[in-house]
Amino acid sequence: MSETFYVVPAEQHNALVEAAYKHRGFDADEAAAAAKFSAHASRHGIRTHNALKALHLDHLFGSFAGGCVPSAKIEKKESRFAASEIWNANKKLGQATAYEAMDTAIALADKYGIGQVAVDNAFHYLWGGGYVMEAASKGYIAYTNCTAALAEVVPFMGKFPTLGTNPHSWGFPTTDAVGFPIVIDWATSVVAMGRVQQLAREGKQLPPNAAVDKDGNVTTDPAKVAALTTFGAHKGYGLSLINELVGGFIGGSLPTLRSRWDRVPEEKHTPAFYFQVIHPDAINGGAFAMGRNQAQNVKAVIEDVLGHGNESCILPGQIEANAAKQTDAAGGLLFSEAEIKAFNEIAEECGADSWSLDSFKKAE
Amino acid sequence: MSETFYVVPAEQHNALVEAAYKHRGFDADEAAAAAKFSAHASRHGIRTHNALKALHLDHLFGSFAGGCVPSAKIEKKESRFAASEIWNANKKLGQATAYEAMDTAIALADKYGIGQVAVDNAFHYLWGGGYVMEAASKGYIAYTNCTAALAEVVPFMGKFPTLGTNPHSWGFPTTDAVGFPIVIDWATSVVAMGRVQQLAREGKQLPPNAAVDKDGNVTTDPAKVAALTTFGAHKGYGLSLINELVGGFIGGSLPTLRSRWDRVPEEKHTPAFYFQVIHPDAINGGAFAMGRNQAQNVKAVIEDVLGHGNESCILPGQIEANAAKQTDAAGGLLFSEAEIKAFNEIAEECGADSWSLDSFKKAE
Repeated sequence: MSETFYVVPAEQHNALVEAAYKHRGFDADEAAAAAKFSAHASRHGIRTHNALKALHLDHLFGSFAGGCVPSAKIEKKESRFAASEIWNANKKLGQATAYEAMDTAIALADKYGIGQVAVDNAFHYLWGGGYVMEAASKGYIAYTNCTAALAEVVPFMGKFPTLGTNPHSWGFPTTDAVGFPIVIDWATSVVAMGRVQQLAREGKQLPPNAAVDKDGNVTTDPAKVAALTTFGAHKGYGLSLINELVGGFIGGSLPTLRSRWDRVPEEKHTPAFYFQVIHPDAINGGAFAMGRNQAQNVKAVIEDVLGHGNESCILPGQIEANAAKQTDAAGGLLFSEAEIKAFNEIAEECGADSWSLDSFKKAE
Repeated sequence: MSETFYVVPAEQHNALVEAAYKHRGFDADEAAAAAKFSAHASRHGIRTHNALKALHLDHLFGSFAGGCVPSAKIEKKESRFAASEIWNANKKLGQATAYEAMDTAIALADKYGIGQVAVDNAFHYLWGGGYVMEAASKGYIAYTNCTAALAEVVPFMGKFPTLGTNPHSWGFPTTDAVGFPIVIDWATSVVAMGRVQQLAREGKQLPPNAAVDKDGNVTTDPAKVAALTTFGAHKGYGLSLINELVGGFIGGSLPTLRSRWDRVPEEKHTPAFYFQVIHPDAINGGAFAMGRNQAQNVKAVIEDVLGHGNESCILPGQIEANAAKQTDAAGGLLFSEAEIKAFNEIAEECGADSWSLDSFKKAE
């Protein structure tokens, strides 16, 4: 890192984040879930989904906009299917909902080998990778997808944005094998809209085939971007469509109306979540070569993939694992001066003590 | 179609395919599964995985090479997990194994809302899309992945092929909504090795970033291709890695030794399969806008995605559905003159009557 970071004790960070959420009307459990998740994101270097972004999203789409309802109660629907749960989140805070859903899917997987939780009327859970990473750290194979807040992405060969950036997140329990959980986690657009805005500010061009202008023609000029495209042409389109279909089966309404609370009030405007957990014992054939056990076999497979001249490749989740090591070595969460300034605006909003730059250790 | 096709009655096709498989030692059930699957592929225009390719693969990697054992019995392992099964396929024919596994996953989903079947010691199942398409036609959300026969793909930023082309296949029960099941089905390489060979024959160049030469440098010259790359850079790499990880958890051995029966005999050389089925009722929140039911809601979501100027976009699975319509209208399976010639070589191999071109109707 060439930027200077300040080391903020996790307790101090969490106290401010909890205060900010409580100030906005969320209850203690919700505020604690939001603080825990933000600390988890910051610890792993996920600056796009730290507490500042979470509170900003809550402002744009959440408790300020009617998309999220503080203290909402999750309603668990009757189901005839033992390994499945269906919830109406009633627009409860996404982080609190997602933590509970993943824990429930884990409990189902413990019993049935695989379990799923479908969540209707949800609110943005921020970073799907965080939930599957935690489940994978506990020893499970975990997956989640959601429909992203806004339809910003055009279908393959299309002109108008009707799909969300619709992320997929998979986590694998590989800590024994490689020291950290492998986490495969990305949006199905080439870039995020935030990245377009950043490139516009910096006067830079977009990568090829990442966006279209208002007429649906491909552009690399961030000032002309009207919508994003899916990565990998028809393949990313298919992956983005999966989230819309799963959301549609669960209870999500038209993608172009998502989070657009001012349009067609009879339609729904909420995203949907899907969670799935697999117990690794439930797919363990027990017949590994060379007398290996399951973890040793997975380790051998990974070593083969990254061998033979591929030693400079990295594994998905490795950058986040390295960030966590740096955070832990520094003894606190790492924030830039600009981020700390933004935290102080949050402190002002909720009447908490502001943070003094001088009180923090520096880390390079 | 500008090429001329001959209309071969499905019964005539199936009789020859069954005879060919029986001639190679497969039992009646296996031969019937192989014929059924080949007809299914040909009906949907999947010429890369028709009976000719299936028998060719059997020759290269299967019953001729020790990778597939005719009349092998599937061994179902004890499991403490009610919604999960773990099988040792003992190198049984992939099509027979996959049909049975998908049927089993459907039965589990009927009971638990979601079910999974993990298969160790498998043999190539050809076209994953075919199995999920059939499950989706029956009303289920279905998924499968497998580890591809050979390690032909380099990891992102790598130089040496250590990953299979590792396909993923998802099927959705959308026949009520759009007239056919949406099937998202592709390999995680930009192109298949067969496509490279085809371009070499035609003197054409590869698309950019699809392959590397023997030194690991990107090339578009099909004659210089030593290995393939994943689509979508690190995103396709992650998707390919998923299959290796799932295969490793099930019981697959080192990717670079897969199907390489002559190398390191103490290691395993078989691929692994993974099947998963979700009952759509198990994720139905029952609270669709505008009084829609689940199928109507999914239809509304799809219409929104393909509306607003996106009317020329197609859905994944639409090309295959259109091919099936053409096949059905023609009244039989459609094969080119070259393909019929190849079928007659198969007929000669197994002592069956050869096909006379004159006996078939033509279709354009």
